Amino acid sequence: MKDTIPTITTGALPAASKIYVTGESHDIRVPMREIAISNEAPLTIYDSSGPYSDPATRIDISKGLPESRGGWLAARGDVEEYKGRCVTDADNGFAKGERLVAPFPAPHVALRATGERSVTQLAYARAGIITPEMEFVAIRENEGRLAAPVRDGEPMGAELPDLVTPEFVRREIAEGRAIIPANINHRELEPMIIGRNFKVKINANIGNSAVTSSMEQEVEKMVWAIRWGADTVMDLSTGRNIHNIRDWIIRNAPVPIGTVPLYQALEKVGGIAEDLTWEVFRDTLVEQAEQGVDYFTIHAGIRLHMVPMTAKRVTGIVSRGGSIMAKWCLHHHRESFLYEHFEDICDICRRYDVSFSLGDGLRPGSIADANDEAQFAELRTLGELTKIAWAKECQVMIEGPGHVPMHKIKANMQEQLKHCHEAPFYTLGPLTTDIAPGYDHITSAIGAAMIGWFGTAMLCYVTPKEHLGLPDRDDVKTGVITYKLAAHAADLAKGHPGAQRRDDALSRARFEFRWQDQFNLGLDPDTAREMHDETMPAEAHKVAHFCSMCGPKFCSMRISHDIRAEAEKREGMERMAEKFREGGALYVPTEPAS
Amino acid sequence: MKDTIPTITTGALPAASKIYVTGESHDIRVPMREIAISNEAPLTIYDSSGPYSDPATRIDISKGLPESRGGWLAARGDVEEYKGRCVTDADNGFAKGERLVAPFPAPHVALRATGERSVTQLAYARAGIITPEMEFVAIRENEGRLAAPVRDGEPMGAELPDLVTPEFVRREIAEGRAIIPANINHRELEPMIIGRNFKVKINANIGNSAVTSSMEQEVEKMVWAIRWGADTVMDLSTGRNIHNIRDWIIRNAPVPIGTVPLYQALEKVGGIAEDLTWEVFRDTLVEQAEQGVDYFTIHAGIRLHMVPMTAKRVTGIVSRGGSIMAKWCLHHHRESFLYEHFEDICDICRRYDVSFSLGDGLRPGSIADANDEAQFAELRTLGELTKIAWAKECQVMIEGPGHVPMHKIKANMQEQLKHCHEAPFYTLGPLTTDIAPGYDHITSAIGAAMIGWFGTAMLCYVTPKEHLGLPDRDDVKTGVITYKLAAHAADLAKGHPGAQRRDDALSRARFEFRWQDQFNLGLDPDTAREMHDETMPAEAHKVAHFCSMCGPKFCSMRISHDIRAEAEKREGMERMAEKFREGGALYVPTEPAS
Repeated sequence: MKDTIPTITTGALPAASKIYVTGESHDIRVPMREIAISNEAPLTIYDSSGPYSDPATRIDISKGLPESRGGWLAARGDVEEYKGRCVTDADNGFAKGERLVAPFPAPHVALRATGERSVTQLAYARAGIITPEMEFVAIRENEGRLAAPVRDGEPMGAELPDLVTPEFVRREIAEGRAIIPANINHRELEPMIIGRNFKVKINANIGNSAVTSSMEQEVEKMVWAIRWGADTVMDLSTGRNIHNIRDWIIRNAPVPIGTVPLYQALEKVGGIAEDLTWEVFRDTLVEQAEQGVDYFTIHAGIRLHMVPMTAKRVTGIVSRGGSIMAKWCLHHHRESFLYEHFEDICDICRRYDVSFSLGDGLRPGSIADANDEAQFAELRTLGELTKIAWAKECQVMIEGPGHVPMHKIKANMQEQLKHCHEAPFYTLGPLTTDIAPGYDHITSAIGAAMIGWFGTAMLCYVTPKEHLGLPDRDDVKTGVITYKLAAHAADLAKGHPGAQRRDDALSRARFEFRWQDQFNLGLDPDTAREMHDETMPAEAHKVAHFCSMCGPKFCSMRISHDIRAEAEKREGMERMAEKFREGGALYVPTEPAS
Repeated sequence: MKDTIPTITTGALPAASKIYVTGESHDIRVPMREIAISNEAPLTIYDSSGPYSDPATRIDISKGLPESRGGWLAARGDVEEYKGRCVTDADNGFAKGERLVAPFPAPHVALRATGERSVTQLAYARAGIITPEMEFVAIRENEGRLAAPVRDGEPMGAELPDLVTPEFVRREIAEGRAIIPANINHRELEPMIIGRNFKVKINANIGNSAVTSSMEQEVEKMVWAIRWGADTVMDLSTGRNIHNIRDWIIRNAPVPIGTVPLYQALEKVGGIAEDLTWEVFRDTLVEQAEQGVDYFTIHAGIRLHMVPMTAKRVTGIVSRGGSIMAKWCLHHHRESFLYEHFEDICDICRRYDVSFSLGDGLRPGSIADANDEAQFAELRTLGELTKIAWAKECQVMIEGPGHVPMHKIKANMQEQLKHCHEAPFYTLGPLTTDIAPGYDHITSAIGAAMIGWFGTAMLCYVTPKEHLGLPDRDDVKTGVITYKLAAHAADLAKGHPGAQRRDDALSRARFEFRWQDQFNLGLDPDTAREMHDETMPAEAHKVAHFCSMCGPKFCSMRISHDIRAEAEKREGMERMAEKFREGGALYVPTEPAS
């Protein structure tokens, strides 16, 4: 057994401090990040990084994070403790001795709904109940704002209120337009919401594979990913030790954790797709639901008759889950057990409030295959499944592509809205060209920003290693930052209230040569500072009124200040201004940030 | 004097060889890149890298590239050799002794139009003449295709013929919709075309600054930038040695070189904007035109009455040239000499065929300032200047922003088309958010891809160092690759004929686990290979039917092949297929590349 207390990245981000906003109706503390600015009021922003970035919290991953949701669940009085399923050797891929990752040491009591009740946020929302989770995300979405700034943007049909209220959250969930992935067994969670009428979110994938990786690395990757802004994390582990590694991750995760249960089920049957059965799969769902997985990717949309639709594709089926299920369907020549047992799956999910991410097993894997018959046939089935899940009071989001050239992106959003009844869309990219291996975080950020603008609620990141290998720590960071900027570009374009506050604060810092503020307000202060220091390392240069890009004589911003100063000095400026076709004083100082 | 024969990157790209296509009407050899593919016909693509990537060419930068255009110009019989202007100390910022960069050693004879003639491609095009330059770019744009593949895309008003003919090129130039920047004093040039109805091009900026850089570095940056795909290079040098460094660059440049003559003029007056005069500026234009600069950025669109429009901006004026001219206008309280002498400037440009890049001095420098009154007021003036330049038979393109959120990008293209009479648009990004210093190549690639799709003809790259410092060699490469992929995404979305050939070839390689082909067909084979090898270094893995991302058991593409094999093995497949709602054989092998 290896060291079970790995080094986890902790501590505040540069110039940032953690603040907590308390609820009005519930006993909740909503974390926010406050960025200090040298000559303005601090900027408060959304913060996904969890207790790890709070210097006041002692982190011990062998104990896990505090179960702050425990009291909320108890107060609802509709769940019961029970002795969960016993962990089997198969759960960890028969890893033994040295190769077995140690189980998570602290006890975790499994909860389930009492009787036949549904304990989903959707059920509560429909019943008119505003849960602590709903109030939590409402406060969180407002980022400490008290008022709406000037509105700008083209929301593309999204409804973006000036301020998000708990009741607005409840309504959005009740109508299926948003989800709060929050398994009752993930009591360490800081709830977040995924929906078109909220801030665009991003997901980071982690997970060991049969080829490489370890528990320590995976927990740190999760912490690292949320530090830079991942809103949810999918554990896509395959190979050995899946169960134990997932325990370590969930017990230490303040963000929702998603999985593809099929991966573990396949390990349990020795990697032979056709040997998969409903019983093995069902067992895996219960196992993961008891651990606290917040959302399951379920590839129930691939039907037998769709498999031949992929025959003429350039890149066939590129979803792992999709290819596994297609193989199963073809081998048995029948509809998949996921499709046939979908209601049974719902019955499991509603007992724990595991949300669905209905997998797009037939998503295109190349520009050539975008928006084809197979892809849209599956999408329509996902729409049918959405209705079934909703009837069972389960929360649902829909997975989307993939590889799509820019001119075919909007149709993806339109078809999804139409056929999936406005359930939140969760896309992978899409990549807008196939010719840039090594840069697919960028080819996909283009598509992600666009589809985010059009209404996609969550963007699954793509790292520079896409198509090439397993991302390491640096790749995870690059992927997360790239997707944070894409999601933010989408929020700006939608006119999300408050989104522009950070751009404006950074731009003011830029214009006023407040270099430290400029770094600290960016998505990655460390990298910005390092890049600046490469050519101008001296501390004195941090107050320099230029940078090495243009040098002092050609710094347009410095000259702009000279212009303003000169204009202010000159007499007769007002008279002069009148002569101009358009009047107004020159360089009136901008308003301080509200 | 430092070593004048620096190390220049030469040699073929991986699996690539240089081929030359000869003209039908003229004595021209158009370079293309042929990428060998292991089990398909080679793919021929556009190649901007010049003789440096041809192992058959001996490179000696102290001799410069061969003057392949010399014969074309002589044949037209409308130019004369003359003793050009003498180089003064001021041209090199009074650099002396050790600090003076050695002059380019080989002689360069200056040419100019005889008499009052115009020797611009626009003048020839209007006269119905198809020049060698026009035939050259026509062949180049077709990338060795003989036929148009299946058309797909949304051209947004662009007219994209199946194959580009020399006559089509002539017409586009005659109507002002495209330019071939090709100074008669840049006889080393391999002509290229910039226009909405051609492939989207990218520009890379290089240049030393007062703070850092050298001649050797700048020549290598140029060679390095075109190796990775830059279609034009702007030399934005400031500080000392501007004249001599530019000579070295142009004599070794197969791509058009652009400059902002104002930068050098400002150096000549000691960096004091208000001391600039028409005479100094005029002298600088002639100096640079004689050297062979192919396009000038001229900030003639800033008029006095527009300066106050920037007063309430968050980031004032962010164009260097714009801020210099604004300061000049304000100080002298008069219209700029660029605006007042615009016709005189045209008279110089038409004698050498220097194209205009009409500078957007008032472009927005932040999301907050996008699409404001100042920006669009200047754009309308640029439209007026376009008409003046066209009347003088000068070629024109228009510079565009800057920082623009996604929802305001389309208006930029629409306003430009409307007010600038379809002259080609050449934008910097635009950056779609301000919050990601260190990642602005990505924030801007999003905007660049979109505005490229909407009709922008050339995209000026942004490197990761934007706003932070002077880009180094690695930054230049990252910026170029990022912009190549954005331009390609735009070509795909427009439905540029032939654009998808490369995506398809790479996707086929991906599906068939031809790793080497996958690397070689990408924009950056070296990086893709390195990333792959980080986790799977062995040569044997180059033929592995999986990668470390998913491992062998979860490789969807491998499973897709298994499905195909299984389907082919099984009897009764056809009968089975009939039962499916949609018929068709499973995984019919894809057509080989045409």
